Amino acid sequence: MKAYVYNFKDAYGLGKETLGGKGNGLAEMKHIGIPIPDGFTITTQACELYFKNGKTIPDTLKKEILENVARIEIETGKKFGGNNPLLVSVRSGARISMPGMMDTILNLGLNDKTVEILARETNNERFAYDCYRRFILMFTNIAKGHPRTEMDKMLENVKSKNHYKLDTEIPCEKLKELVTEYKLYYKNVFKEEFPSNPKQQLIEAVSAVFRSWDNPRANVYRRMNNIPYSWGTAVNVQMMVFGNKGENSGTGVAFSRSPSTGENKIFAEYLPNAQGEDVVAGIRTPLNIKELQNRMPEVYDEFIATIKKMEFHNKDMQDMEFTIEDGKLYFLQTRSGKRTAAAALKIAYDLVQEQIINKKEALMRIDAKTLDTLLHPSFDNNELKKIDCIANGLPASPGASTGKIAFTAEEAETRHKNGESVILCRTETSPEDIVGMINSEAILTSRGGMTSHAAVVARGMGKCCVVGCNDMLINEKNKTLTIKTKDKDIVLTDKDTISLDGSTGNVYIGDIKKNAPELSGVFGKIMEWCDYYRQLHIRTNADTPADALQAKKFGAEGIGLCRTEHMFFAEDRIFFMRKMILSDNENDRIEALNELEPFQEEDFYKLYKNMNGLNVNIRLLDPPLHEFLPQEEDKIVELAKSLNVSKEHIKNRIKYLHEFNPMMGHRGCRLGVSYPEITKMQVTAIINAALKAQKEIKKSILVEIMVPLIFSVEEFKYIKNIIKTTADDIIKKSRAEIRYKIGTMIEIPRAALTAEKIAPESDFFSFGTNDLTQMTFGFSRDDASKFLKDYYDKKILEQDPFASIDQNGVGKLVELAVINGKKANYKLHVGVCGEHGGDPESIYFFHNANLDYVSCSPFRVPVARLAAAQAAIKNPHRYLKTKK
Amino acid sequence: MKAYVYNFKDAYGLGKETLGGKGNGLAEMKHIGIPIPDGFTITTQACELYFKNGKTIPDTLKKEILENVARIEIETGKKFGGNNPLLVSVRSGARISMPGMMDTILNLGLNDKTVEILARETNNERFAYDCYRRFILMFTNIAKGHPRTEMDKMLENVKSKNHYKLDTEIPCEKLKELVTEYKLYYKNVFKEEFPSNPKQQLIEAVSAVFRSWDNPRANVYRRMNNIPYSWGTAVNVQMMVFGNKGENSGTGVAFSRSPSTGENKIFAEYLPNAQGEDVVAGIRTPLNIKELQNRMPEVYDEFIATIKKMEFHNKDMQDMEFTIEDGKLYFLQTRSGKRTAAAALKIAYDLVQEQIINKKEALMRIDAKTLDTLLHPSFDNNELKKIDCIANGLPASPGASTGKIAFTAEEAETRHKNGESVILCRTETSPEDIVGMINSEAILTSRGGMTSHAAVVARGMGKCCVVGCNDMLINEKNKTLTIKTKDKDIVLTDKDTISLDGSTGNVYIGDIKKNAPELSGVFGKIMEWCDYYRQLHIRTNADTPADALQAKKFGAEGIGLCRTEHMFFAEDRIFFMRKMILSDNENDRIEALNELEPFQEEDFYKLYKNMNGLNVNIRLLDPPLHEFLPQEEDKIVELAKSLNVSKEHIKNRIKYLHEFNPMMGHRGCRLGVSYPEITKMQVTAIINAALKAQKEIKKSILVEIMVPLIFSVEEFKYIKNIIKTTADDIIKKSRAEIRYKIGTMIEIPRAALTAEKIAPESDFFSFGTNDLTQMTFGFSRDDASKFLKDYYDKKILEQDPFASIDQNGVGKLVELAVINGKKANYKLHVGVCGEHGGDPESIYFFHNANLDYVSCSPFRVPVARLAAAQAAIKNPHRYLKTKK
Repeated sequence: MKAYVYNFKDAYGLGKETLGGKGNGLAEMKHIGIPIPDGFTITTQACELYFKNGKTIPDTLKKEILENVARIEIETGKKFGGNNPLLVSVRSGARISMPGMMDTILNLGLNDKTVEILARETNNERFAYDCYRRFILMFTNIAKGHPRTEMDKMLENVKSKNHYKLDTEIPCEKLKELVTEYKLYYKNVFKEEFPSNPKQQLIEAVSAVFRSWDNPRANVYRRMNNIPYSWGTAVNVQMMVFGNKGENSGTGVAFSRSPSTGENKIFAEYLPNAQGEDVVAGIRTPLNIKELQNRMPEVYDEFIATIKKMEFHNKDMQDMEFTIEDGKLYFLQTRSGKRTAAAALKIAYDLVQEQIINKKEALMRIDAKTLDTLLHPSFDNNELKKIDCIANGLPASPGASTGKIAFTAEEAETRHKNGESVILCRTETSPEDIVGMINSEAILTSRGGMTSHAAVVARGMGKCCVVGCNDMLINEKNKTLTIKTKDKDIVLTDKDTISLDGSTGNVYIGDIKKNAPELSGVFGKIMEWCDYYRQLHIRTNADTPADALQAKKFGAEGIGLCRTEHMFFAEDRIFFMRKMILSDNENDRIEALNELEPFQEEDFYKLYKNMNGLNVNIRLLDPPLHEFLPQEEDKIVELAKSLNVSKEHIKNRIKYLHEFNPMMGHRGCRLGVSYPEITKMQVTAIINAALKAQKEIKKSILVEIMVPLIFSVEEFKYIKNIIKTTADDIIKKSRAEIRYKIGTMIEIPRAALTAEKIAPESDFFSFGTNDLTQMTFGFSRDDASKFLKDYYDKKILEQDPFASIDQNGVGKLVELAVINGKKANYKLHVGVCGEHGGDPESIYFFHNANLDYVSCSPFRVPVARLAAAQAAIKNPHRYLKTKK
Repeated sequence: MKAYVYNFKDAYGLGKETLGGKGNGLAEMKHIGIPIPDGFTITTQACELYFKNGKTIPDTLKKEILENVARIEIETGKKFGGNNPLLVSVRSGARISMPGMMDTILNLGLNDKTVEILARETNNERFAYDCYRRFILMFTNIAKGHPRTEMDKMLENVKSKNHYKLDTEIPCEKLKELVTEYKLYYKNVFKEEFPSNPKQQLIEAVSAVFRSWDNPRANVYRRMNNIPYSWGTAVNVQMMVFGNKGENSGTGVAFSRSPSTGENKIFAEYLPNAQGEDVVAGIRTPLNIKELQNRMPEVYDEFIATIKKMEFHNKDMQDMEFTIEDGKLYFLQTRSGKRTAAAALKIAYDLVQEQIINKKEALMRIDAKTLDTLLHPSFDNNELKKIDCIANGLPASPGASTGKIAFTAEEAETRHKNGESVILCRTETSPEDIVGMINSEAILTSRGGMTSHAAVVARGMGKCCVVGCNDMLINEKNKTLTIKTKDKDIVLTDKDTISLDGSTGNVYIGDIKKNAPELSGVFGKIMEWCDYYRQLHIRTNADTPADALQAKKFGAEGIGLCRTEHMFFAEDRIFFMRKMILSDNENDRIEALNELEPFQEEDFYKLYKNMNGLNVNIRLLDPPLHEFLPQEEDKIVELAKSLNVSKEHIKNRIKYLHEFNPMMGHRGCRLGVSYPEITKMQVTAIINAALKAQKEIKKSILVEIMVPLIFSVEEFKYIKNIIKTTADDIIKKSRAEIRYKIGTMIEIPRAALTAEKIAPESDFFSFGTNDLTQMTFGFSRDDASKFLKDYYDKKILEQDPFASIDQNGVGKLVELAVINGKKANYKLHVGVCGEHGGDPESIYFFHNANLDYVSCSPFRVPVARLAAAQAAIKNPHRYLKTKK
């Protein structure tokens, strides 16, 4: 039988799947001789067992755990509940780090007896009781799941009654009183004594950590980060070392390079006489690591050497926790450090230059999803010169953001839903704030360091964040944010707008002009590497000349989807569009369409000019016509007047056009079947525009016309014939030469299912995976949010199929259509133009499915270039699976 | 090179695909020595060629046609335009008869010269000029496509001016004048002389017949009968024989058995001194064939013998046209006769008894689609005794129908759409009336015989029809229907309701009580044969105990779909349903559901009782909740009052529940995911009802619970767990034993695509092909009618995918799900419960796809039994195709 528990030495080589990230890091450290406190890892398989066993720890597992405790007792000479008492920490450790999402219990093993021994042996009674009162609090709160509010109040009472500012000022007697008070409280709540048996404490603590895998904030985090529920967490039980034993002790966090910029310089923070939680929770602002050098230079040197050793060993920037106990340095964990997108690029690039990794490895290191955060605007420098910064904090996560002040997560969420841009301003954030952070433009805190909760989470989200802004005071109740400046206090409320610079840590009042991002040299180099490896072409979805230009700057190789409907909504066009829709005969429709044609032609012409010979794929009109008609009474009256028809006429027409399920109604190519004159107008505009642009840019243009919502080859042939006849006629009359291709969206399941019939008639397929997902799932995207919440809560659905392609269902249709389509027409060009075209996971799927290109929004183009390169590195020899 | 034209002798064996039905019949008749006028067939391939060649006859084909004319000239000694002039008929002939849908031209070959020769040679100038004036009319109307109105008026003028009642009363000179007048009219319209060259006449006529394949009424007919547009029509050119040469001549139509009842007795009608059109058009009411026996006994004997010979040769009831020219009998065409469903059964049964065909052949002869017409009610005999019949016509198509009088096809269509039941009452019907006939309960005409247009078409549709009701006078303009009785004239208007008995030809005023059909002994025998051969089980879709009983009588082997939502709409339940929906917390919902539970239980209990141990498959609640809420202001106010909440509360809830695309919204099992308490209530009702019924019927009941709208196995498992927990709990408490199965609808494409994952968890699959069709096509059934019209008109879609399953697209999903589902769970029971379950073509597909059962509406059960038998006869060794 395989073991469920491994000591750190024996665990080496078992990997993250079994040990979790933290357990794996400890095993690695042990292996290369880095000083860590002794301990063992309970595997992720044990977590699975725990949940299968009805959320209790089976006896066999209990036995294994206690055997490992016994081994530590032998090796260290310490004993659980004994005269040289063994105290341990119990920490979660998932495969992928989920900072602050799960639970940790420290100082386990303390009871009325061992606390006295500990006091005696360390000759530090205050320290022992401080440990004890922390342990009781954590055990009550975490292992027993009871809120900590009342116990926190007891501590605050002691401090306020005695005018202590810091926890460290509380004398030993008061801590002793607090312990008694805590235990009494425990007894009142649970109707039993606080457990004094360390083994019982341990088993309950391990259970609690397992259970925390399933807590609501962990579930939200997993969903956001696509971490499967099935993975489970490992648990690490490790001998305690004490950073709070006095001024000769301390604790801290270190990055082997800057997690914010990637600069090759150790970045560390140090908090003397404290336990690790004090750093992470952001309750006290830590000191610069230079303080350590000043106080204990030898320890500092060992510290630096160890970090570099660990980075070299792991070939990546490391994020490590350390504790100094009475002048002895211990590392408690190491992992590849979370970093901003900019830092990820810089570190990957530098590691290649330092010949530690190769280019392929470097590209695989960068999280493609975070890349677009780099592409967001920054404040205009000239504007910044004119404004005073009102406060400054730590630049925790870069970006330039503006929004109104929100004081709570709930408020941020509500106001965001109402369309407001808000900045979440908190004293500090906690995991409960996660939804509020998602809904904010940026995060600002008055406490905490670069590794506080707010900082870590915001960097993960790619959100602008400034932390530890000490001059700021937040009063959540009165909803005021007060900034102390030299002259006066500035008091801001939720009506005020502020701007944050995540790269400098500066805070400003009001909105500031922002500029498009300048991409650094490293960015360009990395993109070059991507282009070398990737096999997919990257196009963009762009409807306007400006979008097209932006995308070209980001490296788009053409336009994969130009939606023509947006062009009809401008003030000067919508009238003719409505006139066309309200016509009840072909002649009137044609008349209105003739008015629209020059507008469309001009729009297309600009697109062609801007793309300067790159392919532009234009989709014919897609939405149902009623979307163009006004809904409000006054707008209808106005329209009636200007069209010189009765109000009732328009209302009747709106009524006639009303559909029960517009998603599956009269739209897409169905409009062209009913009103071929619309198709003719659009084709006329496209061809004329291309002819004009071609003459000017002096490059050959290959026109691509895309038919939406096809369900059968007969339908496609009908529309294709209209397009061909119209185009050929114009081209012939122009006496110029121009090539054009006619293809179809594949966005209706039946089109995918009959691809072998459609392909021989079609020059290209472009998967519209948004609609394809809607119809394959039977989800209306507009309505699904109402019930999908229940699906997430009940874990029926783990991932939003509109964000990342559903590979089992929708993906099966895509694969089927590619295989059968290419078999029937070897020249068929196949791409995707749904939202999924910019999603890295989906891009990997599309690469494997043998697509020729993906098309995504301009800001996603670099993401797609990187994701496509990563896909090609993972699977360089993609080929068609031979399915029947 | 294959020939495009065959003379009747050489054509034998080429089959209907090439020769069309009429051409094939002529070839057969020629082969077995039945007297037919000489001629040739232009094949359906030539028709294809004609359309491909831009609707013109290529020169090579022209040459072939004229070569065949030359052969006739040699064999008969007659000559086109010569002294012994050859006159021909040019008739359409599709693979499947489309009576009256396409065009025919008679007497072709006449011109100013040949008409004189014909007059001289037959010594009957009046006859010759009558032929000539008919020919000019037909040529102008059909070959040239010009309306006949003006020319008809000219004829009517001659008659009214001279007080002639019948066409036959017009003397020769007047006909000569009419010919001159017609030709002048022709010249005025076309700016050229009427063509005198018979070869030119022929080529234009052949073109016209080809063209008529594409006329609007043919397109409607084909769509209704699922005849592919691609088939095309053949053209038969045949030497004219003349039934209008005098009292020694005549024409008629004969059935070898009764097309109405199937009785083994020749049924024929005869019209002396007339051409065939006079019979078919229903202008003159023909005589009973006994008249022929009286007038020409030898001809009569030959007539009878030939018909029997033809029937024996073709092993089926024959529908033949004949003409007697100067005492010589010719048959012009033969085909398997159209018949009522009752006749089809009787004939098939009798032919087996007469050892002419075997049982399998007999079953294949019956058109499964028409079978349900047999199952419709008839008038209550006791009621009939109390009422006087006001008029009597020919019983053209059986049935008992009641409706208000409609005078035109358009009127019938409009009023039907407004929810009225109408009976179309016409002097005679023509192909233009076809849409009106579809929209009427029944058809009543004052003229025409059993083979008139109205009679033939109504029989095809399985619609009640009475023709030739001579005592009835219709004034379309004044909208009155006058019935002459002995005493007085009864004048009816479009406000009046009448009843028709299609089996007796009786017409009544007002509504009459109807009884459920008594199925004849032959019906039962045929059904027994079906049950012997078929491999599919047949279940029914029934929501009420009455439906269930009806279906059991028709042979249903269980209920395949019981929709529970209908049960909530009754006055005493909808209130609680609404209360449940308007609850904003689980407790209130559970309270309202507790009120509903007993109603559901009682409904289910009755179903189980009625089905007496047969399986009952109950589907959980399916529609979105907003369907149960009132829409009108006053209803909302009322509801608010009775629920003691504000009007706004209800309106807000309605607003909240509103969906953009309810088809793809919060419905089906998604309701159970959000509100498990609804599922629990329904399962409680089902299990309790089954337990109670089981005790009473003393038979073991196998409960089947079906989950709608599943898209993934996780979702199914979630709902299954609720069902299982609830059911097990009740069963345990009851201390009784009962078995239950839990399965799922497959109606979302993703469910079909991931069948291999769902199948291991599921006891059965039931394809909901209605929704599956909607989502696979992206068609909202409620909205599609608006644009599908354009699809039919433009021939993009030839068949309604909701009526018969789309085998290429939706069918591919069905096949995939069956293969992968059964592979993953060999015990998986697979059926279909969409509308397609009662469609013969679809049933053939489901048989081949290896389904275990189909479920259809009660009246379709016999249809399904026959269709399943036919499928098994066509493909007895169905097996799973091994796909990967």
